Amino acid sequence: MSQAVRHDAMRARNLALVLGEVGARGAVTRAALAEITGLTKTTVSKLVGDLIEGGLVVETGAVRDGERGRPGVEIRISGRHVAALGLEVNVDYLAVCVVDLARTVRLRRTQAVDNRAALPVDSIARLGDLAANVVDEAVEKGLRVVGGVLAVPGPVDRATGDVRNAPNLGWRDVPLASLLQHFPFPVRVENEANLAALGELWFGSGLPDFLHVSGEIGIGAGLVVRGRLFRGAHGFAGELGHVVVAPDGPQCRCGGRGCLEQYAGQDALLAAAGGVRGQLGVAQVAQRLREGDERARAACERAAWALGVALSSAINLVDPGAIVLGGIYAPLFRWIGDVVGDTLRARLGQMRGTVPPVIVSRLGAEAAALGAAGQVIEQVMADPAALLHT
Amino acid sequence: MSQAVRHDAMRARNLALVLGEVGARGAVTRAALAEITGLTKTTVSKLVGDLIEGGLVVETGAVRDGERGRPGVEIRISGRHVAALGLEVNVDYLAVCVVDLARTVRLRRTQAVDNRAALPVDSIARLGDLAANVVDEAVEKGLRVVGGVLAVPGPVDRATGDVRNAPNLGWRDVPLASLLQHFPFPVRVENEANLAALGELWFGSGLPDFLHVSGEIGIGAGLVVRGRLFRGAHGFAGELGHVVVAPDGPQCRCGGRGCLEQYAGQDALLAAAGGVRGQLGVAQVAQRLREGDERARAACERAAWALGVALSSAINLVDPGAIVLGGIYAPLFRWIGDVVGDTLRARLGQMRGTVPPVIVSRLGAEAAALGAAGQVIEQVMADPAALLHT
Repeated sequence: MSQAVRHDAMRARNLALVLGEVGARGAVTRAALAEITGLTKTTVSKLVGDLIEGGLVVETGAVRDGERGRPGVEIRISGRHVAALGLEVNVDYLAVCVVDLARTVRLRRTQAVDNRAALPVDSIARLGDLAANVVDEAVEKGLRVVGGVLAVPGPVDRATGDVRNAPNLGWRDVPLASLLQHFPFPVRVENEANLAALGELWFGSGLPDFLHVSGEIGIGAGLVVRGRLFRGAHGFAGELGHVVVAPDGPQCRCGGRGCLEQYAGQDALLAAAGGVRGQLGVAQVAQRLREGDERARAACERAAWALGVALSSAINLVDPGAIVLGGIYAPLFRWIGDVVGDTLRARLGQMRGTVPPVIVSRLGAEAAALGAAGQVIEQVMADPAALLHT
Repeated sequence: MSQAVRHDAMRARNLALVLGEVGARGAVTRAALAEITGLTKTTVSKLVGDLIEGGLVVETGAVRDGERGRPGVEIRISGRHVAALGLEVNVDYLAVCVVDLARTVRLRRTQAVDNRAALPVDSIARLGDLAANVVDEAVEKGLRVVGGVLAVPGPVDRATGDVRNAPNLGWRDVPLASLLQHFPFPVRVENEANLAALGELWFGSGLPDFLHVSGEIGIGAGLVVRGRLFRGAHGFAGELGHVVVAPDGPQCRCGGRGCLEQYAGQDALLAAAGGVRGQLGVAQVAQRLREGDERARAACERAAWALGVALSSAINLVDPGAIVLGGIYAPLFRWIGDVVGDTLRARLGQMRGTVPPVIVSRLGAEAAALGAAGQVIEQVMADPAALLHT
C-alpha cells in the first residue's frame, strides 16, 4: 500500500469516527471531539473543516463553556445540504420520501397505482417520474440527494439487487438493478419488510428489540435485535406472511397452503370484510368498523386470530422483545390488537412469564420508505469520505 | 483503578489473546505469537509460561524452523490437565461427559431414567452421583474438571439459572441454581436445544449457519448464525416444538393446540408407531422400520410431514443455511429425511431458489451434553486468568 493510499484510508476512517461522534452526541465541540477520539486538535479541526465544506456538519454558532472551561463552538449534523431518497414499490402504491442527514423528513409523496396490472419496467418508470419531481423539489430547498434505496415486497438478491419472486406484484426474476440505472444517483434494492423494521427503529418507537410486522397485500416482518436487523443466512428472513396458520388451508400464491397471508393479508381481509378487490379500501373498512359493521368486525377478528397463531410460532422461534404492528394493521389496530394479544396469551402464557407486548406502529405504511432513506443516511455516516471525494 | 488492578486486567486480556491464538492456530511458536499479537517476546514468554504452569497449553517438543528461519518449540492447547463436564437432564435419561481443553471427549455416561416420575431434587441428586463417578474417573486420568454446564429441556432464566417451566419434565419454577450448589465446581444451566446446536457447531458438521433440531420428547431448536447461537431477546428462542402445525390440533402440554411436538415429538411418534409410553423405544421403532413395518412407516411419515410444515415456517422466518436433524431424528433419519425435504420443497420451492439442505446430525442425543462441556471450554479460553488465579 502506498503512503498516499494509507493516508487516504486513515483519513476516511477518522472522518467516519468524527462524524459518528457528532451524530451520537447531537452537539459537540472540536475540543471534546479531540478528547473523545484521541486525535490531536489539529487533526480534528482539519476533519471538521472537511465535513463542514462537504455540508455534512455545521457549526451551531452557539458558544458555550467547553470541556475544562474552554469556550467552543459546537458542531452538529447538518440538515441543510445532504439528503437521502427513500423509495417504495408496493402492490397498490408507489412512495417516495426525502430525509435530510439530520433525519428530518423533508418531503413525502405517495401515488395509488395497481402495480399488479403493470409491467415492472412501467412501475419503475412511474416511480422514476415521481422521484424526479421530488428530487427537483429537494434541490429547490438546497438539498443534494446523494443516494436512494428502493423497498420492494419480496426477497431481494443482496449480491445483484434483483428480485427473484415477489408473488404479490407478479414479479419473477426482475432485473431491477439494470432498470434502476436510469436514476441520477445509485439506488440499492432491499426487502420492504426489512426496511419497514428499520424505519420503525430509526423513526418510530425507538425500541431496540422487536419484530415489526408489515401488513400489506403481503405480510413481511423484520426482526431487530439490539438495534440491528436480523437477515438470516441468505437475507430472506422475516417472511411472516408464509408462516403456516393451517397446513391444509387456502392455496397461497407462494405455492404453499394456509399461509398467514391468506387469512390476514390485505386482500384476504378486505374480501372477508365484504369487498371485492379494488372496491373497498382499508380506510373504508375502518369507517365501517367505527359504524359497528358486523362483517368488517368478524373479518378483523379472523385476521387477528391468524396473526396471533403465526406470531405465536414466531415468538417461539425468535423470542422478540415486542411485536410492532405496522402497515394496514396500524389503522386497524383498535379492532385487531386485543385479539392478537389474547391469542398470544392463550397459546404462550403458560410457557412464558410474559408474552411480548403488541404495540402499534406510529409510521404505518410510510415505514418502509423512511427505512429506505434511513439506510442511505447510515451509509453516509459510515463512509463520509466517499461523499466528500465526489 | 490502581496500577496493580490495571496490570491484572491487562495480563488477563493478554493471556486470553495468546491462548486464543494457540487455539485458533493449533500449534504456534512463541516468536510467531509475538508477531501475531504485537506483544514483546519477553511478555509472550512470560504469558506462555503461566499458561504452561496452569496446564492450559503444552510445548509439543517438536522443533521446526520458526518464522524467518528461527527455530522454535511449538505450543499447543493441552488436553492433559484441564477438563469440562457436560451434563444433561432430559425426560428419559441423564447424561454426563468429560471433554478436555483440546476438545477431545474423554468420558461419556448415560443413564435411562424416567425423570417425569421423579422430583427435580431427586433427578439432580442422581445426576450428581453420576457426575461424581465420572469426575473421579477423570481425576484418575490426571484431569482437573474446572466447571460444568447442565442442559435442561426448557427455557432457562439466564439471570438466575432457574427453570420456569419445562412441561415435558413436569418442572415448574425449579430453583436449579440452589440444587446445583452441592457440586464441587460451578455449574451453569442452559437450554438443551441451544447446547445441542452448539455441540453440533463444535463437535459435529462444522457448518457455520444452521438450525439444529433436537428431537426428544420435546422438540427444541438452536439457530447458529455465523458460528454464534441466536438467543432472542430473553434467551427463549428456538422453541420449535411449539410452532403451530394445525391451530385446532391436539392439546399440547404448553397450553397451546396443534404444536409440532404433538405430531413429531418422541411420545407422539412412538404412540403412532404402535407403542404405549415406556413400551416401545426409538431403537425398536427403527428395528420395525428396517423390517418394513407399515404402522411405524406411517408414523414416521406423519411426524416428518409435520416437521416439514413447522420447518417451512421456521425457514420463512429465520432463513437458516441448513437444517440439521438431531436427537431421535438422527437414528430415524432414513425414514424421515426425504419426507421433510419434500414437504419443504413443496411449500418453499416456488419462492426460493434453493431450499436449505436437510442433513442428519452425527451426534444425535449426545449433542447437548457435548455442547454443555464445550461451553465450559469456551469460558476457559475466554478468561484463562480466572482459572490461573484459583
